[in-house]
Amino acid sequence: MKTQTIVLKSRPDGKPKESDFGFVEDTLKALSSGEILLKLQYVSVDPYLRGRMSDAKSYVEPFEIDKPMSSLVVAKVTDSKNDKFKKDDMVTGMLPWKKEQISNGENIQKIDDKDVPLSAYLGVLGMTGLTAYLGLTEIGKPKKGETLVVSGAAGAVGSTVGQIGKIMGCKVVGIAGTDEKVDKLKSKFGYNEGINYNTTDDMGAAIKKNCPDGVDIYFDNVGGEISDAILFNINKFSRTINCGAIAVYNETSTPKSVSVRPFLIKNSALMQGFIIGNYADKFGEARKQLAQYLKEDQLTYEETIVEGFENIPSAFMGLFEGKNTGKMIVKI
Amino acid sequence: MKTQTIVLKSRPDGKPKESDFGFVEDTLKALSSGEILLKLQYVSVDPYLRGRMSDAKSYVEPFEIDKPMSSLVVAKVTDSKNDKFKKDDMVTGMLPWKKEQISNGENIQKIDDKDVPLSAYLGVLGMTGLTAYLGLTEIGKPKKGETLVVSGAAGAVGSTVGQIGKIMGCKVVGIAGTDEKVDKLKSKFGYNEGINYNTTDDMGAAIKKNCPDGVDIYFDNVGGEISDAILFNINKFSRTINCGAIAVYNETSTPKSVSVRPFLIKNSALMQGFIIGNYADKFGEARKQLAQYLKEDQLTYEETIVEGFENIPSAFMGLFEGKNTGKMIVKI
Repeated sequence: MKTQTIVLKSRPDGKPKESDFGFVEDTLKALSSGEILLKLQYVSVDPYLRGRMSDAKSYVEPFEIDKPMSSLVVAKVTDSKNDKFKKDDMVTGMLPWKKEQISNGENIQKIDDKDVPLSAYLGVLGMTGLTAYLGLTEIGKPKKGETLVVSGAAGAVGSTVGQIGKIMGCKVVGIAGTDEKVDKLKSKFGYNEGINYNTTDDMGAAIKKNCPDGVDIYFDNVGGEISDAILFNINKFSRTINCGAIAVYNETSTPKSVSVRPFLIKNSALMQGFIIGNYADKFGEARKQLAQYLKEDQLTYEETIVEGFENIPSAFMGLFEGKNTGKMIVKI
Repeated sequence: MKTQTIVLKSRPDGKPKESDFGFVEDTLKALSSGEILLKLQYVSVDPYLRGRMSDAKSYVEPFEIDKPMSSLVVAKVTDSKNDKFKKDDMVTGMLPWKKEQISNGENIQKIDDKDVPLSAYLGVLGMTGLTAYLGLTEIGKPKKGETLVVSGAAGAVGSTVGQIGKIMGCKVVGIAGTDEKVDKLKSKFGYNEGINYNTTDDMGAAIKKNCPDGVDIYFDNVGGEISDAILFNINKFSRTINCGAIAVYNETSTPKSVSVRPFLIKNSALMQGFIIGNYADKFGEARKQLAQYLKEDQLTYEETIVEGFENIPSAFMGLFEGKNTGKMIVKI
């Protein structure tokens, strides 16, 4: 049986381009005992994959040249010689961009709950939703009545963080870069307040005005000067989830910022780096809770769906051109 | 009954001077029911008191002009109308610099264990020891075989942190500012390695050399550039205890430093500000453990004892002239 695979052809210089990807044809052998045959249904394309296309050391391994690229996918079991899976089961996991493939069933999870759209397993029930939920609950530990500030608030992670914060009884303030996004924070994602950092001269004063009781939790998707401004407004025992930071993928530069240490001491405050991969043991429970929120219409999300296996590279490149609203997904 | 009190006469400009302190005579009334009469035995003088002499907002309340100064003391019960205390009991607590005084017994702890020197309750069993023990165990959570780095390592807190780290099975590396101090780290306090930051050009390289397995726990008494150098060597899941930082008492300056955020994210690392006052519910247990270490000769400490109530101000001022080795204590 023949199948198609997308491999990394060359490491991009700047934005990735068509020629950085290659299509190769593979032949699949017959299933051995314990193996299953999978057919891709939905493929997630994400900005962080750009980092894996470089060979710089980071917290994720670089892709190898002429080897398949991979990401979070939803796949259908089309044949099974493994007791744990049967034909027509749906599964999710980090898998190579291979239209059909053989798996030993390890590192994939069966999708039991089909009352939610399958594509949600790549977004609000996938890495972005899990990052939002586990970052907020495991490090942020929100309590009712607290003030939660989110940077990158209109993004896939940020918009989910805000909604979960609201469900948990927080006052939620979002920071984004356009008036359109700020409007959406309030009209679509239930944020109490929104701040456009591009039209705000004094971010410190804007945070203070929008958070009169100070900041208890800061979910930081951006780092940099926006985050420096937050420091002046944190409360005693505040928690900061460091989820994204400018230059985090760039080993050679060491950006300077306001020293956080005096602020942490004065406020007995905590900052902690968050990488979703370290919380794999909590994915099942978190996904269940998120699915519950979805079914109760407490959680909304945006997605852009591109069709066709051959369009995975262009969908991925589209991320850097702003061609998506919310999660970018390829339907196979 | 007459007694003497030391009050804050004026807020110092720079280093405190004799005329910033005043001696006043008070008259004590007779004991009411529930009250006890206390006689100071030992008084702790500490650099942080300088902060309380200013009226700048900080995490401790400023002293008031013409009101008594206070610090951690050991006192003897000389009369009691309170069931919980009897004559000749020894107590410790934050009390005013008043030679004799009446207390309602609140916010003082009885000293049950008299097998250790009483002055130790102001140092290794007092705030410095509790800061070292609770900062290290509550935030640092040391595990056997981990590498612990301590800045300000030869100070009262730092030298205790290093010893506790060793007891808990860590490799312990200390940073101090003179060769003499670095020698003492190894010869007296059991540090595995010591680094003199004043004679080291490349602190990052020095940390790397002395911590070949990376840094798991950083007990930070100084902040600033030394702490920036640590960042480049932290391990995945490392914990930093922010216990002291340059400029922490100075609200107006906002020093810049290497941005910690990318380092925290890449290493899923934690930084947390530590203020001993937030851990009051754990003092009893921690003090018991520290006393046990002392009796087992696992913990050594240095102290300088000045005699006489009237010498409290000069002992305090001596801290800023380097007149002490280890904890500065006044014996009344």
